[in-house]
Amino acid sequence: MKQSNLFTKTQKQTPKDEESINAILLQRAGFIYKEMAGVYSFLPLGIRVLKNVENIIREEMNRIGSQEILMSVLQPKSLWKKTRRWDQGIGKEIMYKTEEIGLGPTHEEMITDIAAKNIANEEDLPFSCYQIQTKFRKEKRAKSGLLRGREFQMKDMYSFHASVDDFKDYYEKVKKAYLNIFKRCNLQAVITQASGGDFTQEFSHEFQVLSNTGEDIICYCDCGFAQNIEICDKEKCPLCKKPLKKLKAIEGANIFSLGDKYSKALEAFYRTNRGEKKATIMGCYGIGISRLIGTMVEVLHDDFGIVWPKEVAPFDYHLISLNNSEKEAQEIYQKLNNVLYDDRKKTAGEKFADADLIGIPIRIVVSEKTLKTNSVEIKKRHEKKTVLIKIKELHKCLTKY
Amino acid sequence: MKQSNLFTKTQKQTPKDEESINAILLQRAGFIYKEMAGVYSFLPLGIRVLKNVENIIREEMNRIGSQEILMSVLQPKSLWKKTRRWDQGIGKEIMYKTEEIGLGPTHEEMITDIAAKNIANEEDLPFSCYQIQTKFRKEKRAKSGLLRGREFQMKDMYSFHASVDDFKDYYEKVKKAYLNIFKRCNLQAVITQASGGDFTQEFSHEFQVLSNTGEDIICYCDCGFAQNIEICDKEKCPLCKKPLKKLKAIEGANIFSLGDKYSKALEAFYRTNRGEKKATIMGCYGIGISRLIGTMVEVLHDDFGIVWPKEVAPFDYHLISLNNSEKEAQEIYQKLNNVLYDDRKKTAGEKFADADLIGIPIRIVVSEKTLKTNSVEIKKRHEKKTVLIKIKELHKCLTKY
Repeated sequence: MKQSNLFTKTQKQTPKDEESINAILLQRAGFIYKEMAGVYSFLPLGIRVLKNVENIIREEMNRIGSQEILMSVLQPKSLWKKTRRWDQGIGKEIMYKTEEIGLGPTHEEMITDIAAKNIANEEDLPFSCYQIQTKFRKEKRAKSGLLRGREFQMKDMYSFHASVDDFKDYYEKVKKAYLNIFKRCNLQAVITQASGGDFTQEFSHEFQVLSNTGEDIICYCDCGFAQNIEICDKEKCPLCKKPLKKLKAIEGANIFSLGDKYSKALEAFYRTNRGEKKATIMGCYGIGISRLIGTMVEVLHDDFGIVWPKEVAPFDYHLISLNNSEKEAQEIYQKLNNVLYDDRKKTAGEKFADADLIGIPIRIVVSEKTLKTNSVEIKKRHEKKTVLIKIKELHKCLTKY
Repeated sequence: MKQSNLFTKTQKQTPKDEESINAILLQRAGFIYKEMAGVYSFLPLGIRVLKNVENIIREEMNRIGSQEILMSVLQPKSLWKKTRRWDQGIGKEIMYKTEEIGLGPTHEEMITDIAAKNIANEEDLPFSCYQIQTKFRKEKRAKSGLLRGREFQMKDMYSFHASVDDFKDYYEKVKKAYLNIFKRCNLQAVITQASGGDFTQEFSHEFQVLSNTGEDIICYCDCGFAQNIEICDKEKCPLCKKPLKKLKAIEGANIFSLGDKYSKALEAFYRTNRGEKKATIMGCYGIGISRLIGTMVEVLHDDFGIVWPKEVAPFDYHLISLNNSEKEAQEIYQKLNNVLYDDRKKTAGEKFADADLIGIPIRIVVSEKTLKTNSVEIKKRHEKKTVLIKIKELHKCLTKY
């Protein structure tokens, strides 16, 4: 895409009323636009990042056999009455609602109702399904950009099993898939035990990304032990007895058992092969997609701007044309895929500053100077050094990167 | 995908409280699930169709240079106050809202506000952007399945121009792109003049698909003249003088000028090259994605079920294994892409009935009988005849289909 066609502009000024790094950088670089506290629209660069993250998550969920669906945002009061959540807890405190309809902050009621209509016998189990969808929550503190939104993108997945053992097997598969997601986003996640599991605390975990701007605190030991401070009642690691560190972190995902709480309330029963009627065992697995984007910016940025992981970046290459190199740059542009081509009439300084701010992994600069040697200058976003590459070797060189 | 793994089931019974063919067939076949009147969730088969239609639309919009974005559902009252729509018209009658926030029934206010922040000079124009997003409207009559939803999927696009002539050029490009979309969905759309253009009725058109279940009536002449009955004040065609036919139709899309109504109210101004300050000229182009799916079912079904167009179908092939052919069917399954494999323990009659209901374009049947001749039976969904094909020629044969 030609940058002169991109309808959004970068901003030099820090937006007013924003404290968090992700909100500031994402707005300055033109990824998002603030509509109100905790509510952002995604602009052309932003939606490319959003789709990339969605696709990473979709691939990992499909790989463990989960089936994609899309439930509605509007949720009927009748279902939430059955689980007693309409007037208390999340339904009372967090859900935007009218007299009869709520805007989905989560979808346990909805999916259990759908499952109840499709499960008859033991052969119908297990299964897992997920959606990538917009969620709504009345957040009192919505000051952290994409880290805590009133409207946000989420992947929520639900699994249904005939036995606790079968649930446990799947739970471990999801753990691995989630670690893959964080890895592909260049984020190192610590898996912490947390509160919140509905039949045993053993099956409630958070994926925490260490960050000084995180709102969570985790008790952590280098040996691998980690717990959310909410449930940590000790000073020393129970495994190796070293003192526990207390570290700030951003909660990127959580997974936990639901037991038979929802399946009983909403009658998601099945008949065993011996004819008994039993409630299905459920698991629930959430990952905040827009929050993951915010987390990447918080953790991976530098003084000059965002540093996107390769799989997430809005484009693979940022091609920059300087003084009188338009013809050659245009030729290179047509041979590359997934490239943002800065063809604007701006100074080298302005173009480099924008490239650093936007954070595309590989910068390719064509200038009068490099053309004297039939070369272009290549620079990785997270490295300082630049390399001169012959134009005819460019394609081969980039595939190796 | 193996059909035994699909967590949804087909239903023989017509769902209660549904009158429209699309709602009945899509629920019976397991594409959608009704949450409440006018609100449906998309199940695994349904989301595959939804994504296919989204991709057709995305391709056609990208082809005419429009830039994808994703605006928020939650909209601030302040913007709607500026266009005086908060307390009247769509904001009063159709928008779900609280004291300060509305759920987007449309996004003119939001996009114009974003544009205003990104347009400075004439060089910043023209541009066009679109989103594929969930919309919310308080519909009094929500009895037509996906044809009229309270929550529905829509592609809305907005274009910004420095001159009316430039807008007109783009308007014609969109018309062609929209006709491509309908064509790729096997729907024949009639372009009708309609009311609703904000600076001239000349630039307000609907894309109407003829259907006895449509809620619109159009005045139509075989010579090509067509008008929505709302603005048609004549009995005879003004072009060829033949009597006009009055036909029922489903409105699938609409496009119209917005003039400078929103750009003035929300200050989307630009400086001309001579330094004058001017309001941008805007166009607006909507197509209902879930409605398009409903329309395909209404228009293309037969007595046995849905007949999906090739590009929209949830799978390309429906592979059916009958008595003792599992091994051979499994081998064929592994060689085909995008196939639903009916490996369930059901009778031939049940499997064929489900295949007709679900409506995948090409059915491939493997049975003891066909295996005697190393063949499979191929049938196109919309044709009666079946053809025997040698298994080793199957791949070559399907690529020709």
